[in-house]
Amino acid sequence: MAENNNNHRHVISLLVENEPGVLARIAGLFSGRGFNIESLCVAETLEEGVSRITLVTIGDENIVEQIKKQLNKLINVIKVIDYIGTPFVEREMVLVKIRAKPEHRAEILRMVDIFRARVVDVGPESYTVEVTGNQDKISAFLTLIKPIGVKEIARTGAVALARDKKK
Amino acid sequence: MAENNNNHRHVISLLVENEPGVLARIAGLFSGRGFNIESLCVAETLEEGVSRITLVTIGDENIVEQIKKQLNKLINVIKVIDYIGTPFVEREMVLVKIRAKPEHRAEILRMVDIFRARVVDVGPESYTVEVTGNQDKISAFLTLIKPIGVKEIARTGAVALARDKKK
Repeated sequence: MAENNNNHRHVISLLVENEPGVLARIAGLFSGRGFNIESLCVAETLEEGVSRITLVTIGDENIVEQIKKQLNKLINVIKVIDYIGTPFVEREMVLVKIRAKPEHRAEILRMVDIFRARVVDVGPESYTVEVTGNQDKISAFLTLIKPIGVKEIARTGAVALARDKKK
Repeated sequence: MAENNNNHRHVISLLVENEPGVLARIAGLFSGRGFNIESLCVAETLEEGVSRITLVTIGDENIVEQIKKQLNKLINVIKVIDYIGTPFVEREMVLVKIRAKPEHRAEILRMVDIFRARVVDVGPESYTVEVTGNQDKISAFLTLIKPIGVKEIARTGAVALARDKKK
C-alpha cells in the first residue's frame, strides 16, 4: 500500500472471548478492505476465557476508524483500544538463529551484550539469541547481525500496555 | 474442548506471503473445525514480503494432520513446520503491569531479579515488567505475582525455532 500523509501506524489492543472464529473474523475485517496487518499477537489473559489480541497496522485514518467501529460491533469482542495519541509501552521479542563460525563468536557475544540480548540455545554451528525491545531496537539488532549470517528468525510482533497517568 | 489421550500440544510455524487475507484463511481453517488456537504470533521475516506465523494448538492428532494438509494447500502458504517430535527452542514474552504499593516494591523487584525479568516502565502506582521464557516460566511468574496485584497483562504467545542437529 502506498504511504500517504493520512496514514499512521496504529497499535490496537482487543480483549476478546476466546472462541473459535474470533480471530478469523477480526483478520477478515482488515483483509476485506485490503488492509495489511503488520504484526499480530494473540494469547490468554489472566481472566478465564478472555484473550488479548495486539495488532499493528498502518493505514488511512478514516478506514482505521471504520474498522474500529466494526470491531466494536463484533460478537465476542469485549473491548477495543487504539493506543494512538496516548502514552503506552510497546515491546516485542525476536528469536534469531545466527551462523556462529568460530571467528565470529566473540563479535556475536559483544552484540548480545550491547543489546542486552540472551543466548538461549547453542548448536555446533549456530547461536540462537532472544532480543526484546521496541521495533527500532529489534530492527537495529537484525540489521547489525545480518552480515554475520542469520539462518532464520521468529518474531512475535508488538504487545503493548497503556502507561499510567501521571498524578 | 475436552482433553483426550490423543490430544497433543502442537507448535506450528508457517512461512506465508504477506498478503491481506492469509491470516483470515488460516484462522478460518482452525475455527471451521471448532479448533481453538491457544496463541498465535505473526510478524515479518528478513525476507521481503514473507511473514512467519507461529501458532499453538491442542487437539486430536488426526484433525491436526488434516489441518496441516489443508494449510499446505493454501495459496500464499510457503511452508508448514510442526515442531512436535523434533527439538526446538520456544519462548514467549509478557508485559505485566503490577500494582506497586510502597510496601510491595521490594518484593516485586526481588521477583524481577529471580525471573531475570526487566522493569520497562514505572508509574506512580505501578511497575510494568517484561518477562521472557517458556510457557511454564511465564505462568509461574504470573501465579507468584498475582497476589500482589496485577492490573493487566499483554502476552505475545510462543515463537519457536528448530534446534540445530547435533553432529
